[in-house]
Amino acid sequence: MSRPAPLSGFPELLPEQRIVEQKVVAKLARTFELHGFASVNTRAVEPLDQLLRKGETSKEVYVLRRLQADAESADAGLGLHFDLTVPFARYVLENAGKLQFPFRRYQIQPCWRGERPQEGRFREFWQADIDIVDRDTLPTHYDVEIPLVVGDALRSLPLPPMTIHTNNRKLSQGFYRGLGIDDPAEAIRAIDKIDKIGPSGVATLLADNVGATDDQVKACLALADISSDDASFVDDVRALGVSDPLLDEGLEELAAVVEGAAAQHPGLVKADLRIARGLDYYTGTVYETFMSGYENLGAVCSGGRYDNLASEGKFRFPGVGISLGVSRILVPLLGSGALRATRPVPTCVLVALADDDARPRSRELARRLRERDIACEVAPSPQKYGKQIRFAERRGIPFVLFDSGDGVTEMRDIRSGEQVAVDVDTWAPPAGDARPDIVAGDRPTLIADL
Amino acid sequence: MSRPAPLSGFPELLPEQRIVEQKVVAKLARTFELHGFASVNTRAVEPLDQLLRKGETSKEVYVLRRLQADAESADAGLGLHFDLTVPFARYVLENAGKLQFPFRRYQIQPCWRGERPQEGRFREFWQADIDIVDRDTLPTHYDVEIPLVVGDALRSLPLPPMTIHTNNRKLSQGFYRGLGIDDPAEAIRAIDKIDKIGPSGVATLLADNVGATDDQVKACLALADISSDDASFVDDVRALGVSDPLLDEGLEELAAVVEGAAAQHPGLVKADLRIARGLDYYTGTVYETFMSGYENLGAVCSGGRYDNLASEGKFRFPGVGISLGVSRILVPLLGSGALRATRPVPTCVLVALADDDARPRSRELARRLRERDIACEVAPSPQKYGKQIRFAERRGIPFVLFDSGDGVTEMRDIRSGEQVAVDVDTWAPPAGDARPDIVAGDRPTLIADL
Repeated sequence: MSRPAPLSGFPELLPEQRIVEQKVVAKLARTFELHGFASVNTRAVEPLDQLLRKGETSKEVYVLRRLQADAESADAGLGLHFDLTVPFARYVLENAGKLQFPFRRYQIQPCWRGERPQEGRFREFWQADIDIVDRDTLPTHYDVEIPLVVGDALRSLPLPPMTIHTNNRKLSQGFYRGLGIDDPAEAIRAIDKIDKIGPSGVATLLADNVGATDDQVKACLALADISSDDASFVDDVRALGVSDPLLDEGLEELAAVVEGAAAQHPGLVKADLRIARGLDYYTGTVYETFMSGYENLGAVCSGGRYDNLASEGKFRFPGVGISLGVSRILVPLLGSGALRATRPVPTCVLVALADDDARPRSRELARRLRERDIACEVAPSPQKYGKQIRFAERRGIPFVLFDSGDGVTEMRDIRSGEQVAVDVDTWAPPAGDARPDIVAGDRPTLIADL
Repeated sequence: MSRPAPLSGFPELLPEQRIVEQKVVAKLARTFELHGFASVNTRAVEPLDQLLRKGETSKEVYVLRRLQADAESADAGLGLHFDLTVPFARYVLENAGKLQFPFRRYQIQPCWRGERPQEGRFREFWQADIDIVDRDTLPTHYDVEIPLVVGDALRSLPLPPMTIHTNNRKLSQGFYRGLGIDDPAEAIRAIDKIDKIGPSGVATLLADNVGATDDQVKACLALADISSDDASFVDDVRALGVSDPLLDEGLEELAAVVEGAAAQHPGLVKADLRIARGLDYYTGTVYETFMSGYENLGAVCSGGRYDNLASEGKFRFPGVGISLGVSRILVPLLGSGALRATRPVPTCVLVALADDDARPRSRELARRLRERDIACEVAPSPQKYGKQIRFAERRGIPFVLFDSGDGVTEMRDIRSGEQVAVDVDTWAPPAGDARPDIVAGDRPTLIADL
């Protein structure tokens, strides 16, 4: 077998980077649980007809086929999910009779899209989603809660500052309708491209695809230019002189989100009326989150309210949620060294080995350390102690335990070189050394650097 | 959209069951880390040629195809992994220059096999693997360590007792060779079927496929009948009167595994000379683990030593490892109620809502509880308090916090009905109520039962 090469679009992490990913996922999960969200994992596959309901991404779906199966076997109807929203909507419908509503769930899993890779785009990537769904109706106070939960989750991580830009579909649609535009949905799709093609490009689209007049184009662009950290955007919109009942509803809902979030977490959420979101299923609030200094990654955490995504006959399950792009954030931050683990292995103590016959005794010392939740491993072979210490250094293990015989054990901190007699049944590492953690910014002093 | 039906072979868990799975995975991961194993996640896909190196499972591989892609696109060469050993061997080769050896890793991920589902068999299933690999040679003391780590992991879970049945390929091959059998590998494949087709069926296979004489068949079956909790199996094998240098090596290695394991964890490992393992790549120790009372599930945790699985030119990475069938164990135990969560949600406290204007105040109380790691959520709507209490009961939330105004808050334990004034900044739930946990056996008293 020759040396395998990485597969483009399928990022894999080295053990040291994987520790960062584990900690990030654990901290996200714990924050979501602190807010009462239950974990759900769905299978990796969905029936193709479910995946293709959102036509936009149909070309990117990976379809499964059993090797050597008949051309049209039963499995041919399955594809890998490309997000966690479609599987969740299906899960809610399938299990509605066994769930308690409003149902709060989080879901952290990989997704797959068969697209051409480019920076920040992957064919396999992890997402962390939270959603709240209810039967029939879902109060709008949940539109305030979702960004607050995300804000708490992001605060628990050493990441660059994030701002959640928020808009409301009713506001945009009502405004366009009040302006006399025939196809508000098409106008939203045009505005969604503003960051890519600029205001003049959007003006052309609005004229060509929506048949907007110069005045209508000007008003649409003026609306997209409005943003604020508080509810002052309402006056700015009013000043454009458009009126429509749906616009009023949207203004009220967006003001409630911005003000409600500011009361608990100032600076987290801002109203930004250029935010559109491409997907058709959003019906009210929409969110897009940008990471300071990494705006080129695009939105790293997006979502919104969908009142009609999950329905079965006369039953409807409106929801609101957001999806955090774990791979989209982590892969560049790990690559640039902006996020690191304090050490590359879980092991805190290497138990040295005097000679081969001493292995049972060293195993026993390791067992006693583990009993008090201290991660350790026994040296691979009874080399000279200097070599065993260098092995710990190479592995990034901060402590080495020596059994000096007659019940005397000594612990060496290989960073300071200090070695003292210890009682293995009471010794504990400094809190910062107990488990690897994640740190931001400059590379901390790693054992391998010394 | 009509109500979706489950997909056969792709089990999904309800939130209460998912809590059990989460805890099991977390406890396994923590035990592996306590033993110095680092987490690795590999991508879900491997190049087809890698997956097909183990010919036996080729029919079960799920191949990926981009929907609407050309018939022979680049992606057509990818398939979903069917175990975690093949991806790990590839990962070691790909990253050998960046890993420290001996390399200890654990990996807990789903695998996929496109097979017809039957009880205990899934098309998507989770496995938890540990492996230790080194360059060139790997000392045999790791063959003792692997079952001891698994023993610790299993002890941390409320599962039925497990026994790791162990054999050694060198022992079997040496014995068959010493007997004068031409194709020891084929003889091992025949013995591997003994639990399915019985000794007489195996006798026929040995005669037909291996050309064994009656005496040879008798000796093979006598060997397969030997088992012991200590090294006494060595004398039983010797008594069969076969001699071969490879047999001697195998006897010595297996005795070391059984005695080394018994010294640390009596009763965990037994020598069982009928254990064969179907896969070709094992070269020494092999393990199969059976769960007491659930022997019908087959081996729930299997593995062994593979000296030649990963190699690149003149570099060789011998390894030893074991794979625990997380889904294979959990799905039946969850289905029978033998394993349960103490409550179905992470939430410990429901913060009641006096009226709609009180939401910011209730949010603030919730924030203060969360700051001290107490999971809580605010009531969905300001219904009468009796209804809010019943909502908590239905959700399985044990406590309800009432804001009585003037800074007075009261906490109600909805199981006892007791309600007392508390300081939200110092109150803490009893240890058993802080987070949901897993329990074995009879269903504990759940809130929903009261």
